[in-house]
Amino acid sequence: MRIALGIEYDGRRFAGWQSQPHGNTVQDALERALGQIAGAKVGVIAAGRTDAGVHASQQVVHFDAPLERPLNAWVRGVNRFLPPEVAVLWARPVSDDFHARFSAFSRSYSYFLLNHPVRPALSAGRVGWYHSPLDVAAMREAAGLLIGRHDFSSFRAAECQAKNPVKQLSRLDIVAAGGLIRFDFSADAFLHHMVRNIVGALVYVGKGSLSAQGLAELLAARERRLAPPTFMPDGLFLTGVGYPAEFGLPACADSARLTFWS
Amino acid sequence: MRIALGIEYDGRRFAGWQSQPHGNTVQDALERALGQIAGAKVGVIAAGRTDAGVHASQQVVHFDAPLERPLNAWVRGVNRFLPPEVAVLWARPVSDDFHARFSAFSRSYSYFLLNHPVRPALSAGRVGWYHSPLDVAAMREAAGLLIGRHDFSSFRAAECQAKNPVKQLSRLDIVAAGGLIRFDFSADAFLHHMVRNIVGALVYVGKGSLSAQGLAELLAARERRLAPPTFMPDGLFLTGVGYPAEFGLPACADSARLTFWS
Repeated sequence: MRIALGIEYDGRRFAGWQSQPHGNTVQDALERALGQIAGAKVGVIAAGRTDAGVHASQQVVHFDAPLERPLNAWVRGVNRFLPPEVAVLWARPVSDDFHARFSAFSRSYSYFLLNHPVRPALSAGRVGWYHSPLDVAAMREAAGLLIGRHDFSSFRAAECQAKNPVKQLSRLDIVAAGGLIRFDFSADAFLHHMVRNIVGALVYVGKGSLSAQGLAELLAARERRLAPPTFMPDGLFLTGVGYPAEFGLPACADSARLTFWS
Repeated sequence: MRIALGIEYDGRRFAGWQSQPHGNTVQDALERALGQIAGAKVGVIAAGRTDAGVHASQQVVHFDAPLERPLNAWVRGVNRFLPPEVAVLWARPVSDDFHARFSAFSRSYSYFLLNHPVRPALSAGRVGWYHSPLDVAAMREAAGLLIGRHDFSSFRAAECQAKNPVKQLSRLDIVAAGGLIRFDFSADAFLHHMVRNIVGALVYVGKGSLSAQGLAELLAARERRLAPPTFMPDGLFLTGVGYPAEFGLPACADSARLTFWS
């Protein structure tokens, strides 16, 4: 029986999502905990393989359960065996043609940036940081030029394994409140480091080192070496994965679990 | 020259505020970092001695600088020597009659509670947690009965060293958004564990184990042994300290540094 799980994690103490021989990844922690409930080795497949230090308020995975258990065993039972920084939010039985990665038609990420003279302490590791004032209106204008279907090679890591650098960026909203800036991204799929590379370029726009026109030229150039550096992973959260309604998965993460102050 | 500092910290990795022989407290970390800039041992006095696992978006301390430095040395310079979970937010010269503890006429704390079937992972250690639905309206009604000048002995830890259990609770607001509940407290001063003990009692009200009338009777009884248990430290933040305007300190913490999502 195939089961889909919604997963939340704080990525700070993990070497990213994907399993490694040293075992210190979110996938390794989850597979060990599932194995405790299943009584056998369990392999999971995730919608998005997040990098070291990147968080998720809603990662989606699937696995084939080697034995039948009440659904709640895959939530509360597994959570007992997970480290405090990882939790299963929900479990749903899915048809065998569901695939956490290949059935997904969209991914959403948010990037949180503290724009303040003093580095974060309370939110260390959970927000990016830039010390000098940023022009949010200029960033928002430039961000609008990236919306749509483009070859995003200028924002693609050298080690990216995607077959096609053309992605449909459907959303790039920038919300600023006090000194906190949130970037909300949605796309059919993302290239490796694409969100952090775009945030890095938008920070250049915000501090006046790159114009909106310059950003448009950068996109058109399809040349990573011309672009500003990758921004730190700290503020990046995978917030949702979209699937066809027929699979019957929860629509999105419970916002309260990412909301920290209202 | 006396200097006041605003301090932010994540209390998880520290054994509370107050200096200990093992040296793993926020005060120890701050005094070590100040010592690096001052070139001599520096002792600080804080407005509130927070417990292990308790956080601050705005703690206030003072110290007597053994030598003159540009104010920024007490912010950016000291921050270079502090662990990532602690930061100096601001520094101000103050008159010699300023005392971080005795000059304060009010303290504010917020308690964040995740009310969700699944334990926190992204916010582990930074929110309290209760798994079953809570009646926020009932909690708010009961909270109103605590406002004012009362003997709070029923919410006082056995080891509390305050001379007088009578405190003026000027604010106890409860804000609920999604599954997150925030309790905002202000008082002239707080007894040891007073906020966590009141939150514990209000959770009893929210789950239907204690009525508003029962809470009023508990307050009147002035007997800690009758009251529900102390709630976990995880969701507690010192958010502000009030001083007479003549000292010229910043009015309150920059909200963006505690805001996590808007």
